[in-house]
Amino acid sequence: MTEAGTRRRGRGGGGAARRAERTSVRIEAARFIERNIPNFEILNEEALQIIETNAETVLEEIGVNFVENPEALERWRAAGADVQGERVHIPRGLARELCSTAPGRFTQHARNPERNVEIGGNSLVLAPVYGPPFVRDLDGNRRYATLSDFHDLVKLGYMSKWLHHSGGTVCEPTDVAVNKRHLDMIQAHMTLSDKPFMGSVTEPSRAQDSVDMCEILFGKDFVQQNTVMTSLININSPLTFDATMMGALEVYAANNQACIVSPFIVGGAMAPVSVAGTLTQVLAEGLAGIAYSQLVRKGAPVIMGAFVTSIDMNSGAPTFGTPEASQITYGMGQLARRLGLPYRSAGSFCGSKLPDAQAAYETANSLNVGLMSGVNFMLHACGWLEGGLVSDIRKFVMDADQLGVLHGLAKGVAVDEDAQAMDAIREVGPGGHYLGCAHTQANFKTAFWRSQLLDYKPFETWAEEGARDTLTLATERARKLLNDYQQPAMDPAVSEALDAFVAERKASMPDSFS
Amino acid sequence: MTEAGTRRRGRGGGGAARRAERTSVRIEAARFIERNIPNFEILNEEALQIIETNAETVLEEIGVNFVENPEALERWRAAGADVQGERVHIPRGLARELCSTAPGRFTQHARNPERNVEIGGNSLVLAPVYGPPFVRDLDGNRRYATLSDFHDLVKLGYMSKWLHHSGGTVCEPTDVAVNKRHLDMIQAHMTLSDKPFMGSVTEPSRAQDSVDMCEILFGKDFVQQNTVMTSLININSPLTFDATMMGALEVYAANNQACIVSPFIVGGAMAPVSVAGTLTQVLAEGLAGIAYSQLVRKGAPVIMGAFVTSIDMNSGAPTFGTPEASQITYGMGQLARRLGLPYRSAGSFCGSKLPDAQAAYETANSLNVGLMSGVNFMLHACGWLEGGLVSDIRKFVMDADQLGVLHGLAKGVAVDEDAQAMDAIREVGPGGHYLGCAHTQANFKTAFWRSQLLDYKPFETWAEEGARDTLTLATERARKLLNDYQQPAMDPAVSEALDAFVAERKASMPDSFS
Repeated sequence: MTEAGTRRRGRGGGGAARRAERTSVRIEAARFIERNIPNFEILNEEALQIIETNAETVLEEIGVNFVENPEALERWRAAGADVQGERVHIPRGLARELCSTAPGRFTQHARNPERNVEIGGNSLVLAPVYGPPFVRDLDGNRRYATLSDFHDLVKLGYMSKWLHHSGGTVCEPTDVAVNKRHLDMIQAHMTLSDKPFMGSVTEPSRAQDSVDMCEILFGKDFVQQNTVMTSLININSPLTFDATMMGALEVYAANNQACIVSPFIVGGAMAPVSVAGTLTQVLAEGLAGIAYSQLVRKGAPVIMGAFVTSIDMNSGAPTFGTPEASQITYGMGQLARRLGLPYRSAGSFCGSKLPDAQAAYETANSLNVGLMSGVNFMLHACGWLEGGLVSDIRKFVMDADQLGVLHGLAKGVAVDEDAQAMDAIREVGPGGHYLGCAHTQANFKTAFWRSQLLDYKPFETWAEEGARDTLTLATERARKLLNDYQQPAMDPAVSEALDAFVAERKASMPDSFS
Repeated sequence: MTEAGTRRRGRGGGGAARRAERTSVRIEAARFIERNIPNFEILNEEALQIIETNAETVLEEIGVNFVENPEALERWRAAGADVQGERVHIPRGLARELCSTAPGRFTQHARNPERNVEIGGNSLVLAPVYGPPFVRDLDGNRRYATLSDFHDLVKLGYMSKWLHHSGGTVCEPTDVAVNKRHLDMIQAHMTLSDKPFMGSVTEPSRAQDSVDMCEILFGKDFVQQNTVMTSLININSPLTFDATMMGALEVYAANNQACIVSPFIVGGAMAPVSVAGTLTQVLAEGLAGIAYSQLVRKGAPVIMGAFVTSIDMNSGAPTFGTPEASQITYGMGQLARRLGLPYRSAGSFCGSKLPDAQAAYETANSLNVGLMSGVNFMLHACGWLEGGLVSDIRKFVMDADQLGVLHGLAKGVAVDEDAQAMDAIREVGPGGHYLGCAHTQANFKTAFWRSQLLDYKPFETWAEEGARDTLTLATERARKLLNDYQQPAMDPAVSEALDAFVAERKASMPDSFS
């Protein structure tokens, strides 16, 4: 853990240093998680082999569609696939072989090097909610999201100790033209936070804008040699790769920037109702998408993604925190590890309309599974509400606090001599108590994870202080964090160059809202 | 799964059958969980051996106290322990050897044989909250619990599909004299439910009353040959066994009834602040207690318990759903399995004062760990609030619904031909959808777990229907369950004999409220 505050004071010169001193807001940021615990393996070897064999059958016999993308079809043909129309039949083993050139672990750089993250291996990087057109604000109102909400969410992400990544579309800034909002979003991540972030994927040209802006921020050479974005490429399940998403992937892969190649599946609608069937399809789709990234540029960093929920057959709505989603998340973790690929899944998923107990049960179910299934990149790790339609600002703060539980659990169990505590047990003996003993005094500050949000007070104290529920505490904490927020320092020349780029790009095209 | 309703109709004769037909309330009750998934192993072999070696050192060098219990000291002396005053030093290996006569798995019988549970091996039996002096009622009021609340909680437990066990002190009926309330509690479990239950442990004589009442319900011979109660024996941590609890254990073990031998530990107060140190102490205490049960009666059924929370060093309050508690729960599961003993831990633990998001996060963390750590008997699986001071009637219903998630996850992943769903993937193909395909039609009813409580509706429908939050839904569900409740039939002679026993015992002593 480090203090961005300290760093900022060091950088920002006399005036900034004095301001920082006066307010003395300390920003703590935890390093990404490196698991010191095993992964949970729900599938046995036989089940894994059946699913892997079936996925190869799907790729070979059924094939996948690359839609309106003649260049992709040409790449596949050249690689040895049997292309018929837009359908690509991938011979058994080819996709897996192509995937083998993707790195098992890579660094995504942040403008503050202390915020760099490693994605892959035993790491777990936590990034916030992505994509909702609505917010529920601090007054509990549900409304279309604006750029101002976007800024607030980026600031809260920056202030959240357990969040390693600033994310991407933390909400849709619907008050900005569709064809220009990506510029404001990227600029906000770059200037309001110093954590790593995601690029735009809604058009290949917007992916290129994202790369261009990174070249301003990091320098052109640095971007060509390093990964500075991890962007979300959704597969159009079942088995379809559309031109927009693949166009964005082509831009990123060509520039050595990372993509999450991820089916977006509501089980029973976009995949079979069974866990094994869904795993088969998700694996086939991931293999095809990641293989394609390697056809664009061998060695391009990628992440095997699995966004999978089940469906409520009564209402047709997606459901979250369910056992079948957990089983798929565990299984895909095993399948990704057998491919040697970084893995993205899980998040603060819930179907609840409110940040209430339902939301918390469902979210905790998914967060726990995310840690235990070996997820390396957890998008939507905080702030998700209502099946992803809403970014909830209070739930963002509530979930972000719970991410501390994952950090604590991932540490594993120390068994060194101090941790064995035999002297303490001897000192205290039968019938004594440990509060005052030497071992407790030496260790109590770091022994137990502690929420920065939840209430631990005795009933009487809690009642005297106004009997606040979790939502009330979260509202107060979010307001305080936003009030305490100080923008991380940035070279004024870089800041001006970003302004100029955004202004120039916005001026180059009329507003479009579709 | 079976229908008690159907069974009742079969039993109850014409009038009851017609009443059941009219109301057509179907009581579904799931069978206890048999895990088809692996356990999560957080400790490696080296760590396990260190902790086991240290636990033996604790037993031999430090020893344990058996307080005011000369008979226990005599038993230990005869078994080869070094007894000095009330301190029992147990030679390395002796406790483990004595534990080896305890069964690895046993059946607890219910008066309805369909509700029998197996405890041990890969089973998980879910029982409700135990012990709170307060309730939060359906109007959200926090007050001292009464026998009427106790009855409501037993009825809700009987009506809860995912709850296998009626539990014990689901709340303290504080309006009944302390020395008589156990009679009302046991009678309520026996008559208002047909699920298995727990006996009284607050005095050896009350344990004997529990056995005597079971002899009325099940028959004297049956009780001597079968286990019909699983009762909670707390160890007075650190390393102390008091005469009351041991007296109750002696009654139960002598009658071949099961005891959970369980330290009750707030880490940092009753055990070291470190996970490894706490595991060492919990293992030592469990070994000593279970060994003692086998000195009373070789082969008596027992469960290795671990109730462990961490402490908030700011307020001194116990905290729940924390990573350290999870690590201990996982670790003790491994240690219990290495002893071949059934394991009790986890529950709907939370420190929240309200059944809100904090309560749900903390509860879900603990429930998930309970499943994954190989717990065989989960006491407090629903309804716990405020660090165990409160039985919350709405949270009882909320948590009981979430127990369905554990059932679904524990099933594991089928990979038979139907589950592989290759025909479905072929039928649908790229760009299609699965809602109408043959495989979906054949499987959708059972494919996905579905909450009976939480809201899955689209926002607009939900808003039109009153924008109900989880608490509102739980209030409505609890009221409906209590309204629909029908007492399971009982032989009137048994019922009258229980009435007579309770009346006779109550008349035999003056009320005591301490």
